[in-house]
Amino acid sequence: MTSSGSSHPPSAEALGQRPVGIVGLGLIGGSLGLDLQAGGLEVRALVHRSSTAERARQRQLAQQIDTDPQVLQGCGLIVLALPLDRLLDPPQALREALPTDAVITDVGSVKQPVLERWQGWHPRFVASHPMAGTAEAGVEAGISGLFAGRPWVATPDAHTDTDALALVEQLAALVKAQWLQCPAAAHDQAVALISHMPVLVSAALLEAADQGGEAASAAALVRQLASSGFADTSRIGGGNPELGTLMARCNRNAVLSALGHYRQQLEQLEALVQQEQWSELEQRLTGCQQLRPDFL
Amino acid sequence: MTSSGSSHPPSAEALGQRPVGIVGLGLIGGSLGLDLQAGGLEVRALVHRSSTAERARQRQLAQQIDTDPQVLQGCGLIVLALPLDRLLDPPQALREALPTDAVITDVGSVKQPVLERWQGWHPRFVASHPMAGTAEAGVEAGISGLFAGRPWVATPDAHTDTDALALVEQLAALVKAQWLQCPAAAHDQAVALISHMPVLVSAALLEAADQGGEAASAAALVRQLASSGFADTSRIGGGNPELGTLMARCNRNAVLSALGHYRQQLEQLEALVQQEQWSELEQRLTGCQQLRPDFL
Repeated sequence: MTSSGSSHPPSAEALGQRPVGIVGLGLIGGSLGLDLQAGGLEVRALVHRSSTAERARQRQLAQQIDTDPQVLQGCGLIVLALPLDRLLDPPQALREALPTDAVITDVGSVKQPVLERWQGWHPRFVASHPMAGTAEAGVEAGISGLFAGRPWVATPDAHTDTDALALVEQLAALVKAQWLQCPAAAHDQAVALISHMPVLVSAALLEAADQGGEAASAAALVRQLASSGFADTSRIGGGNPELGTLMARCNRNAVLSALGHYRQQLEQLEALVQQEQWSELEQRLTGCQQLRPDFL
Repeated sequence: MTSSGSSHPPSAEALGQRPVGIVGLGLIGGSLGLDLQAGGLEVRALVHRSSTAERARQRQLAQQIDTDPQVLQGCGLIVLALPLDRLLDPPQALREALPTDAVITDVGSVKQPVLERWQGWHPRFVASHPMAGTAEAGVEAGISGLFAGRPWVATPDAHTDTDALALVEQLAALVKAQWLQCPAAAHDQAVALISHMPVLVSAALLEAADQGGEAASAAALVRQLASSGFADTSRIGGGNPELGTLMARCNRNAVLSALGHYRQQLEQLEALVQQEQWSELEQRLTGCQQLRPDFL
C-alpha cells in the first residue's frame, strides 16, 4: 500500500485537457459531476433512462447528459459509476462507445473481478474505489463534497498504464479525496472485513432479536427496550438489501473468509461465557476497547 | 408487560414525604441526585470513598453525602445505584443500615438474580432498571435529564409490595422516564437480545477485523479503510470491558440463549452466501431492512 505521499512521474495528460465522462448519475456519479464542474471541468454523462437524464439536467449534474453512448466521444477520462452487477456485465453498446485512447476507471466496492474483466476489455483501465457514501441512492442522491477527506483506493497491477493511473489520481485530488494504492486482492479482503461481512453480522443481530423475542414471548418488549447501542449495531444490517447482496455476491470468497475469522472470534467469546471465565472475557473486551480507536 | 397507562391504586406514600437515599453516585446515582433535587426532593447519598464524597459535594449531587451508612436513616425510598457485582454481593453494613420501613429499589441491568436475593433481604424491595446511559462513568458522569423519555422498567412479582412499587413509579415519573412493568425473566431475555449479547457480537467484529487483517497481511489497510459503518457496528464492542463482562456474568443463561439465536441466523446467512442463493439472501436482507424501524 502506498499513500498520496508517493511520487508519480508527471502525467502526459492533465485532467482539464479533455471533458470527463461519467456513466451513471447515482450517488457517486452525481456527486462526482457536481464536484468536477465546481473544479472547472467539462463533464458529460451517460444515463440509462430519459427520465433520469431530464432530472439530472434539472439538477445540473453535468453539462451534457444523454442516453446515447455517443455523448462520451471526446472524453479523456471516463468514470464508470455503475452498480457492481452492471459494471461486471456491461451492455455491449457501452463497451463499444468507450474511446480506446480514453482512460477508464470505475467506482466499484469490489476490485479483483472488475480489474480482471475490464483490463481485458480496455487498454487504459484503472480499477478504483472512492469510499464515500450516504444512505441515499439515485439521481436525487448526488451532493457536493462527498469525497472530501475520504479514501479513494486504486488497485493497479503490473499491466496498469501508469499515465492512466496518474490521471485518476488527479481526479481524486480534485475532489479532495485521500489517494491510496494497494493490490486488488488486499482491497477486497479489507473491505470484506470492515464493510461486507459486517453487513451480515449486523443483519443476523436484527433477525436474532426478532426470533429470540418471539421465542421468549417478548417480541414487543425487545422492540421497546432496544436503545442507541442496538440502533448503532444494527444500522448496516438494516441497509440497502440489493447493495448488501451485491457485495456478498461479487466478493464472495473474501466475505466467506471474513465470516470464518468472525465465527472463530465469536465462538471463543461464547466459550468464555459458557465456561464462566470472567477475567479472560474481561481481558478480551479490554483488548477490543484498545483496538477500536485504530479503526476510527 | 404493562405501560405507564396502567392504573395503580393511589399510594399510601408520596415521594416528597421523606428524603430519598441514593447508594452510589456514579452515572446513574449522580444523575438521579441532580434530577431529584431539581424536583424539590431532599436527597441523601452514601458513597464508598471519602474522595468521592468530597467531589460529589462539590458537584452538589445530593444535599447530604457521607461514607457512613447512617446517612440513610430517615429515608422513605433508597435507590441502590451500584454496579451489578456489588449489588448482588453488598456489604453487610449496607444491608443492616437500610431501614425496614423504607422502599428499596435498584438500577441493575439484570433483574432476576437481583430480585431473588434482595426480596429475601428486604420486605419492601422493588427490582427496577432505568435504561439510560452515556459512555461516561464515575462521580463526574452524572448529568441532568438523563432519564427523560427513556424506559424505566420494573419487574415486580407476586411478592412485591404494591405500595412500594407505586412509590418507585412516582420516582420514575419525576425524572420523566417511561414506566414499564414486565416479569424479571422477560426483562433479562430482552436485554440479553438487544444489549448484552450484541456487545459480544460487536467485540468479535473488532477481533475479526484485526485477526483477518493480519492473516491477509493487510492490518494497516483494514484500519485505514474502516468507515462510519464499521465505527457504528463496533461501538458497543469497544465499550467498557468491566460492564460487558458483568452483564455476561450476571445474565449468563439469557446471554447464551441469545447467542444461540444469533449463531443460528448468522449460519443461515453464511449458508446462503456459500450456496450462492442470492435472491434468498436479498429477501433476508429486505426483511432486516423492514424489521429495523421497529427497534428504533
